[in-house]
Amino acid sequence: MGSPSNYETKLVEGEFGYVLEDVPHLTDYISDLPTYPNPLRSNPAYSVVKQYFVDMDDSVPQKIVVHKDTPRGTHFRRAGPRQKVYFSSDEVHACIVTCGGLCPGLNTVIREIIHSLDYMYGVNKVLGIEGGYRGFYAKNTITLTPKLVNDIHKRGGTILGTSRGGHDTTKIVDSIQDRGINQVYIIGGDGTQKGATVIYEEIRKRGLKVAVAGIPKTIDNDIPVIDKSFGFDTAVEEAQRAINAAHVEAESAENGIGVVKLMGRYSGFIAMYATLASRDVDCCLIPESPFYLEGKGGLFEYIEKRLKENGHMVLVIAEGAGQELLAGKTEQDASGNKLLQDVGLWISQRIKDHFAKKNKMPITLKYIDPTYMIRAIPSNASDNVYCTLLAQSTVHGAMAGYTGFTCGLVNGRHTYIPFNRIIERQNQVVITDRMWARLLSSTNQPSFLEPRETESVKENGENPDACADNIKGT
Amino acid sequence: MGSPSNYETKLVEGEFGYVLEDVPHLTDYISDLPTYPNPLRSNPAYSVVKQYFVDMDDSVPQKIVVHKDTPRGTHFRRAGPRQKVYFSSDEVHACIVTCGGLCPGLNTVIREIIHSLDYMYGVNKVLGIEGGYRGFYAKNTITLTPKLVNDIHKRGGTILGTSRGGHDTTKIVDSIQDRGINQVYIIGGDGTQKGATVIYEEIRKRGLKVAVAGIPKTIDNDIPVIDKSFGFDTAVEEAQRAINAAHVEAESAENGIGVVKLMGRYSGFIAMYATLASRDVDCCLIPESPFYLEGKGGLFEYIEKRLKENGHMVLVIAEGAGQELLAGKTEQDASGNKLLQDVGLWISQRIKDHFAKKNKMPITLKYIDPTYMIRAIPSNASDNVYCTLLAQSTVHGAMAGYTGFTCGLVNGRHTYIPFNRIIERQNQVVITDRMWARLLSSTNQPSFLEPRETESVKENGENPDACADNIKGT
Amino acid sequence: MGSPSNYETKLVEGEFGYVLEDVPHLTDYISDLPTYPNPLRSNPAYSVVKQYFVDMDDSVPQKIVVHKDTPRGTHFRRAGPRQKVYFSSDEVHACIVTCGGLCPGLNTVIREIIHSLDYMYGVNKVLGIEGGYRGFYAKNTITLTPKLVNDIHKRGGTILGTSRGGHDTTKIVDSIQDRGINQVYIIGGDGTQKGATVIYEEIRKRGLKVAVAGIPKTIDNDIPVIDKSFGFDTAVEEAQRAINAAHVEAESAENGIGVVKLMGRYSGFIAMYATLASRDVDCCLIPESPFYLEGKGGLFEYIEKRLKENGHMVLVIAEGAGQELLAGKTEQDASGNKLLQDVGLWISQRIKDHFAKKNKMPITLKYIDPTYMIRAIPSNASDNVYCTLLAQSTVHGAMAGYTGFTCGLVNGRHTYIPFNRIIERQNQVVITDRMWARLLSSTNQPSFLEPRETESVKENGENPDACADNIKGT
Amino acid sequence: MGSPSNYETKLVEGEFGYVLEDVPHLTDYISDLPTYPNPLRSNPAYSVVKQYFVDMDDSVPQKIVVHKDTPRGTHFRRAGPRQKVYFSSDEVHACIVTCGGLCPGLNTVIREIIHSLDYMYGVNKVLGIEGGYRGFYAKNTITLTPKLVNDIHKRGGTILGTSRGGHDTTKIVDSIQDRGINQVYIIGGDGTQKGATVIYEEIRKRGLKVAVAGIPKTIDNDIPVIDKSFGFDTAVEEAQRAINAAHVEAESAENGIGVVKLMGRYSGFIAMYATLASRDVDCCLIPESPFYLEGKGGLFEYIEKRLKENGHMVLVIAEGAGQELLAGKTEQDASGNKLLQDVGLWISQRIKDHFAKKNKMPITLKYIDPTYMIRAIPSNASDNVYCTLLAQSTVHGAMAGYTGFTCGLVNGRHTYIPFNRIIERQNQVVITDRMWARLLSSTNQPSFLEPRETESVKENGENPDACADNIKGT
Repeated sequence: MGSPSNYETKLVEGEFGYVLEDVPHLTDYISDLPTYPNPLRSNPAYSVVKQYFVDMDDSVPQKIVVHKDTPRGTHFRRAGPRQKVYFSSDEVHACIVTCGGLCPGLNTVIREIIHSLDYMYGVNKVLGIEGGYRGFYAKNTITLTPKLVNDIHKRGGTILGTSRGGHDTTKIVDSIQDRGINQVYIIGGDGTQKGATVIYEEIRKRGLKVAVAGIPKTIDNDIPVIDKSFGFDTAVEEAQRAINAAHVEAESAENGIGVVKLMGRYSGFIAMYATLASRDVDCCLIPESPFYLEGKGGLFEYIEKRLKENGHMVLVIAEGAGQELLAGKTEQDASGNKLLQDVGLWISQRIKDHFAKKNKMPITLKYIDPTYMIRAIPSNASDNVYCTLLAQSTVHGAMAGYTGFTCGLVNGRHTYIPFNRIIERQNQVVITDRMWARLLSSTNQPSFLEPRETESVKENGENPDACADNIKGT
Repeated sequence: MGSPSNYETKLVEGEFGYVLEDVPHLTDYISDLPTYPNPLRSNPAYSVVKQYFVDMDDSVPQKIVVHKDTPRGTHFRRAGPRQKVYFSSDEVHACIVTCGGLCPGLNTVIREIIHSLDYMYGVNKVLGIEGGYRGFYAKNTITLTPKLVNDIHKRGGTILGTSRGGHDTTKIVDSIQDRGINQVYIIGGDGTQKGATVIYEEIRKRGLKVAVAGIPKTIDNDIPVIDKSFGFDTAVEEAQRAINAAHVEAESAENGIGVVKLMGRYSGFIAMYATLASRDVDCCLIPESPFYLEGKGGLFEYIEKRLKENGHMVLVIAEGAGQELLAGKTEQDASGNKLLQDVGLWISQRIKDHFAKKNKMPITLKYIDPTYMIRAIPSNASDNVYCTLLAQSTVHGAMAGYTGFTCGLVNGRHTYIPFNRIIERQNQVVITDRMWARLLSSTNQPSFLEPRETESVKENGENPDACADNIKGT
Repeated sequence: MGSPSNYETKLVEGEFGYVLEDVPHLTDYISDLPTYPNPLRSNPAYSVVKQYFVDMDDSVPQKIVVHKDTPRGTHFRRAGPRQKVYFSSDEVHACIVTCGGLCPGLNTVIREIIHSLDYMYGVNKVLGIEGGYRGFYAKNTITLTPKLVNDIHKRGGTILGTSRGGHDTTKIVDSIQDRGINQVYIIGGDGTQKGATVIYEEIRKRGLKVAVAGIPKTIDNDIPVIDKSFGFDTAVEEAQRAINAAHVEAESAENGIGVVKLMGRYSGFIAMYATLASRDVDCCLIPESPFYLEGKGGLFEYIEKRLKENGHMVLVIAEGAGQELLAGKTEQDASGNKLLQDVGLWISQRIKDHFAKKNKMPITLKYIDPTYMIRAIPSNASDNVYCTLLAQSTVHGAMAGYTGFTCGLVNGRHTYIPFNRIIERQNQVVITDRMWARLLSSTNQPSFLEPRETESVKENGENPDACADNIKGT
Repeated sequence: MGSPSNYETKLVEGEFGYVLEDVPHLTDYISDLPTYPNPLRSNPAYSVVKQYFVDMDDSVPQKIVVHKDTPRGTHFRRAGPRQKVYFSSDEVHACIVTCGGLCPGLNTVIREIIHSLDYMYGVNKVLGIEGGYRGFYAKNTITLTPKLVNDIHKRGGTILGTSRGGHDTTKIVDSIQDRGINQVYIIGGDGTQKGATVIYEEIRKRGLKVAVAGIPKTIDNDIPVIDKSFGFDTAVEEAQRAINAAHVEAESAENGIGVVKLMGRYSGFIAMYATLASRDVDCCLIPESPFYLEGKGGLFEYIEKRLKENGHMVLVIAEGAGQELLAGKTEQDASGNKLLQDVGLWISQRIKDHFAKKNKMPITLKYIDPTYMIRAIPSNASDNVYCTLLAQSTVHGAMAGYTGFTCGLVNGRHTYIPFNRIIERQNQVVITDRMWARLLSSTNQPSFLEPRETESVKENGENPDACADNIKGT
């Protein structure tokens, strides 16, 4: 995959520091495109609604915690239907592809793209690309109809299948061109959106009238700018089962320790929110907050303290936590033991070894890895509504001729966001900000930091406010 | 209850149209109050967090869909801990009361107020007022400790008990004064917040150093300004069960009709979101959208059409829908038949009567009222986190000396909102706005409106944007 | 529907008082029927199983609490595959019909009949009769294939639709004869099985080679002889939600009363088991145990006592409880108020009136009717396995040439039971037996009986042991 | 722990081959014990019940699939209250201990023993022994009251804590004697019941008036004679979640394989029933049915076939399956790699290695181990009722002077079973019997047996009927 280097940011400036980071539009590189009145104008459901169409100038600020003299800053274009569209209903030939790991809500998003295209815009040519990016050139496609997808939101997984990798820009754009596809909906995470960016750039280079729209999917909530990713609420909810079980197992044994590994390769949001929601967790370890095992202020000391106080404890660990410790471990062993790379198994073994060595405090440790049980469930009601609006917003954007954009919730409003803002970094828990302090306060775990160290903790980009508060703010 | 007439709005103006609608502060009417450093400064969990304390000037805009030249408009004060507090830990004597109907999350809010006061501020004198407002003067109190409330968030209901009415300002403020209470946390809906307002005014009149803080509770989501009320997500989730059951019953019978009554006395939010989340609903009736039964474009015609097309249908009706039709009915009968006031029973009977009269289309109607099964469940993970942050924010506000304020989420940020903004009107679904159009589009139900009528549909206050989009906007 | 009068019992006697109440067989009235080796003999899954085929003499006793000198008594024929079958695979043309109200597990039974016929016996002509008995002559049929029904066990309801009534013996048997159907699977309750009996008798009269098999369906568990009906476990489980909600509502109010109506027109099994499983119920009223409201030892006195002791209470009432009280009420009013016939609404109103009249004990009563939410859910794992084995056993019986039989679990073994034993009476809770005593002991409610009255309480048939113990024995 | 060698069987013979395998009684070794009228006689709940007390001669047959000339065979004593008891209410000093792994329902059993002793028999001295057998001599005890345990049935785990091992007969019986305990309730599995046997024998040797009662607990359902163990239904239900997740993950990937490990060290009941209840499983491997990986008829061949046919598959494996394959592996490596002993990780790695080696069929395998999430949940309604009756029956037995007995459900009736029948062997799936054939037929998996081999498959004891059918028979 080439690096998306020539993606240019479109900026519109306004009064008092207002900046709109706009998304590309087909008319940026194709001139004289015809427009059509939005078919929704004659839709009985919408014709009664006066305020239905989005004003072309509507935008949403990224930063909303402000002082009375704060400049207005970055804004994104508000999503929603426009009075004019750049595709006629008959002309549209859309395709949908899902890439990467499973996430609750995938099927709801697929369903709603198809329903929106059909019921709102009269479009009935929608192809499903099967098995991720490689499905564009290596597999059959499936014709998607509203009837076929009518009940799929009640099932987990993705009816299109998914895979990792398989991105070959030329083959994919050739396939798009050969099939006459002119709207491409790409649902996937970080890497997938990077792939969408180069597909968009190649399409632009070829001058094709093809709208490329990304829908960010990451159960880890590690995509920046947006408030939260779909499926996240469902995942945090389902994680409660595992934490409850760990708590029961720990409580029922002498010096019982329950260890739960949760998703989060680079970002500890699920672990942090699941911990805050549960209240039965004594320690939460995430990738953003380094920790150490031995010695004063270390994990073992804390575990021993909690066991002496309470007789049991629950530890939640994100899958990407402590990777620097595992890495060191691997080098020492030089064994390439793949199993050690599961941080949950690794830390469970380290804790067992530590207490076995001490020989005076017999512990009972139970390790639970609910990852696939969480990923595979259908989305809950809240995520169902979210996925629906996300899909509708994306379809409105593509019909309106926008391209090279991702659709996402910014401060509670659906917006169109340029690809580069989504892929430039990962959203992470800011451990010098308030949400993490709340977690530390709720678990009473050590910070694994000396106060003086905090000065040098790397901070996360230009908008710490959004980072700390981006799900349920403060 | 007296009318809260002398509540004055504190306005702070800034550049480019910025207005801060500030909340009252104890120093507004008591001079020379001593301040103390916030105890969180020495809390190990917070001491590592650089950005923990909220800047005194932080505010959050109410309207965030803007154009490049839109004036900045109304802002609310951002919630959170301040560097200085106006109560010493030993001095605080707090009380908590819950009023009105049940709502998922009440116990979580209670738990977190107590935990926040204790763990963050070292406060350990917290009284529970039992059984709503009248508990201030007519019942015993209960001493609330972190240990006592440790697991209550896993239970539905409120451990303090609740009731409607019982507000007697003088007796309540006498009781507060007699007991030496100086922080009053009042959890309740519309009417309860009005009561809180007059309590605040009486306290101010008496010149007492007592902070009065409201936490808005309404399962119907009918409180204005705030994004959504706690428990709402849980309620929409749980409503899915009833809709699923109605769908199964309807599908299994010839001309099966499933009717589900959901909460919503004046606002149809639960019905609307439950419908959008489910997709098995053919018609959703809410208080904001008048409808009629007979004749062209009426409900009966639509039901008949759906039965002929599909063989079954599901109808969701908010408890306050169609009250104008019931009212007429009551007048005709002059019988005071209380049963007719249940709109679900009423509409079920009307539908049965209509099809019985027609005598050619036998129907099978099943009516489900899941109200109490929804209200009484514990809050889900998402609401648990929400309730926690809400309680923490409120405690921070009272400790910082603010009073006469409600704490609520505005555009995803916790803020302090003056009482008058909360009680001046009710939040309602705006049926000329986009969310309702989406619903109409998803159910294909008639709008029960002629297009020309929509011009005169009463709109809802100054901020239609927030009204339409206030849960998951677009 | 004619009365099934000429159904003759086939008795086989053995040593020490052994009696086998056998079921009819096609050879009883058709001579010289050819037989075929059971196709399972060559099925790879079964060919390794030595003990697969049921011995022709296997039987199961009805009464198993015995003394050392007790005669052996009534037995039923054990269900299961026979070495010989009376239909060739190609010859079979089966049909399935579901009648009466919904019950968890209906779809599982339908699925398993089709799967058993196909995978075990190579039968692929199966018709679905839609909408209950009247579907035989008034509606279209649906062709049922294993693929079509593959996932239906995950859905509630019945894919065939259902209805009450519609039984017209002549039309139904004409339809069976016209379509060339030779195996009829009838899933339904009491009345449905009576209908199956007259269908069987008419078929026998006409001398047709048609096996008629009944599968008892009753969420109320009111079918005699069998241990329990499918869906019952699921219903009791789901009823817990309603009881929990009633308990939370009651606990949160002053003198809170939660009333839950559960299914049980003539039998209080669901109410009794749901009460025993929950432990939050203070009073359980069932059809079998008459009660009275006023005066000493009456319900009102008990409610008042519980409220004074505990501050709240939960009442579970089966839909058929107290009908004699309602009937009297209706006569007095002469108003034909149909709503009073809902015993839950009725008793709620009576309790409210009583305490309003007393005027010194304000109560808060919440009434929950979860009936349709319980009926419409899919069966749980335990019922799924049960339904599967039930369907397989029934198919084995029909293939083996048995007819006029119901398949049911007797003391944990699947058996073939003559129709007359199923329809002669209803299974009821025996209130002079131990299970009811356990319930009284667990709720501490009054018996509403004077001890001397119990002598004359009507007992339930010849087998009180089976009646009292028929689900989870003692 | 000594071997329970001197446990003598008490046999009572009757007509037509009737044998009662009776349980020991205190009067077997203590003469002149006084008796008392059962306090239930004056309990208002029971006084109305004529048939409350169990007849001294009531017994329940073990084998109930009979021919007309089958001798009557083994019976067990029916459980339940007797007219006379051998302890006065004041005299009783009971203790309860839970041993071994967690199982849904433990807290319900504990609760009901305490409630039964108190409400039925007026006993209020009950001690909880904490942390399993070693709690008798190494830990504090806890005083158990009805109030303390009132809500524990809604929580998973055991409030008494549990552990494995720690059995020291002398110390335990000394502790019983020192504390003046005269009723010992021991809840635990196979090994625990063996421990109970030697405790009983030591008590008998010392001539103490102490009743020892066992309550069999095994989530694996591997205890013989009894129909099923408590918690089993709940476990099978909860296992559905893991199977569903595995199915969704497998379906969403190309050549997706979902592997679920379920409990079952020596017996595959949970795996078998979870497979039968789900229908999404393509292969179920249990300890009782040996299998092989490579070559014709092996697992790899079958997996490849299913992937080619369906594109995905789900494999359920009991934790004790294939131990002979792992054992061989361990010997070869001589590495003591503990991780290989998790059969789920082992088989997942073997499958991955196999398909990696083949290099032409890329697979995606997801492994789910829900063990602790299943064990730790509260019991469902069905198990709640079961646990209640089990506890009541056991208390009735101890009060009636029986000792050295286990209480269990035999053919749906609660009975008292001599210890030796429970500990002599383990209940296992009989793979030459019908239930396993049903499973093979439902999954279409290979039998891994040549037909001729089945002759020599070891059969399971004297009662294949009970073994095959012991949960939901046919």
